[in-house]
Amino acid sequence: MELELAQPILDLNDRQAVKNRELLDEKRVFVLDLLASPGAGKTSSILATIDHLRDKYRIAVIEGDIASDVDAQKIKRYGIPAVQINTGGACHLESLMIKRALDVLDLDQLDLIIIENVGNLVCPTDFYLGENIKVMILSVPEGHDKPLKYPGIFQAAQAVILNKIDTLPVFDFDEQLFQESVSQLNPGAPIFPISALKGEGVEAWAQWLSQRIDAVVQ
Amino acid sequence: MELELAQPILDLNDRQAVKNRELLDEKRVFVLDLLASPGAGKTSSILATIDHLRDKYRIAVIEGDIASDVDAQKIKRYGIPAVQINTGGACHLESLMIKRALDVLDLDQLDLIIIENVGNLVCPTDFYLGENIKVMILSVPEGHDKPLKYPGIFQAAQAVILNKIDTLPVFDFDEQLFQESVSQLNPGAPIFPISALKGEGVEAWAQWLSQRIDAVVQ
Repeated sequence: MELELAQPILDLNDRQAVKNRELLDEKRVFVLDLLASPGAGKTSSILATIDHLRDKYRIAVIEGDIASDVDAQKIKRYGIPAVQINTGGACHLESLMIKRALDVLDLDQLDLIIIENVGNLVCPTDFYLGENIKVMILSVPEGHDKPLKYPGIFQAAQAVILNKIDTLPVFDFDEQLFQESVSQLNPGAPIFPISALKGEGVEAWAQWLSQRIDAVVQ
Repeated sequence: MELELAQPILDLNDRQAVKNRELLDEKRVFVLDLLASPGAGKTSSILATIDHLRDKYRIAVIEGDIASDVDAQKIKRYGIPAVQINTGGACHLESLMIKRALDVLDLDQLDLIIIENVGNLVCPTDFYLGENIKVMILSVPEGHDKPLKYPGIFQAAQAVILNKIDTLPVFDFDEQLFQESVSQLNPGAPIFPISALKGEGVEAWAQWLSQRIDAVVQ
């Protein structure tokens, strides 16, 4: 019974996502949907990415959180437009929430929108928002076994960022095993080891992202 | 429309949870539902807790994961019965899954069952499984701002374990601010700072848990 009910709800989300996609295509705006656990470093990775791309693209951020607007405040202090969505308990963003955020952004003045999804390795995977790509962040303290336990998100992501590599000496994290597990689930997906706080490795990730943006906005 | 549909599904879960509770009361088995993000150290905290309580209670573990049985294997190597539940994509455990796990455990030979829920700070909060208490783990690398962003789980938990305190020197984690945020959301809940891997602080947590178990099983 639950499965039957789930179908029309997902379709409703997908229908709005397609409309978002059409609007964004028309405006030539590239959208990155960023997924990760709570505390993996989504906001600091976004700030580090902005550092590398703000001279080239006009950027805005959509912040998804259960509650609070601390992340949107951080982004705004950086001089970047940010829209906060509070899901009020829901564990993922849906396309209608994104539609409302797009309504308050000036899409004619943007090239790139980064969506910071709710911190959750499971639910956001299944919801298409109209984005061009989904990318996930895993942080070193979470452990190298996460692809085994949360395969869905590793398969849905077009790229994997491995954040907090400056803490590798403190944690028992097997980088090679991690790379092998990711490759088995998602053979084509690149892995970008970075330290968002220290700026390490961000250049390679930003270049990869930039190539994808250029294909849409130019 | 979605809200109307959600109601009967939740009721179905609660009805089975009440039946689980009745069975567990009859058998005098205490159940702890342990919630946390992926990688916060649920399994290592369970192992550290077992170290402190295995001489006093007969313990089993129910492992909830999207996929894989690596955690259940770890527990079994410790000489503790473990039942693995793979949710096959679902972001939380439900009471019917727990019922099936209880069916394969010998409840007459148990005092304590620890449920390791799916790694997720959001969804498991809303699902009563028939447990006596819910306890959550936050780990230092996740950051002290998590109570602001995920208030629901901090309110639902009867106690909060702060894990990986051995990494406090590496991360910008404000313990006092964290304690104040937790107290505002959940004034009575104790916070137990521990390092599950190094065994630090586990004694106080195990004593607190032991008092609650004794009230049920004795």
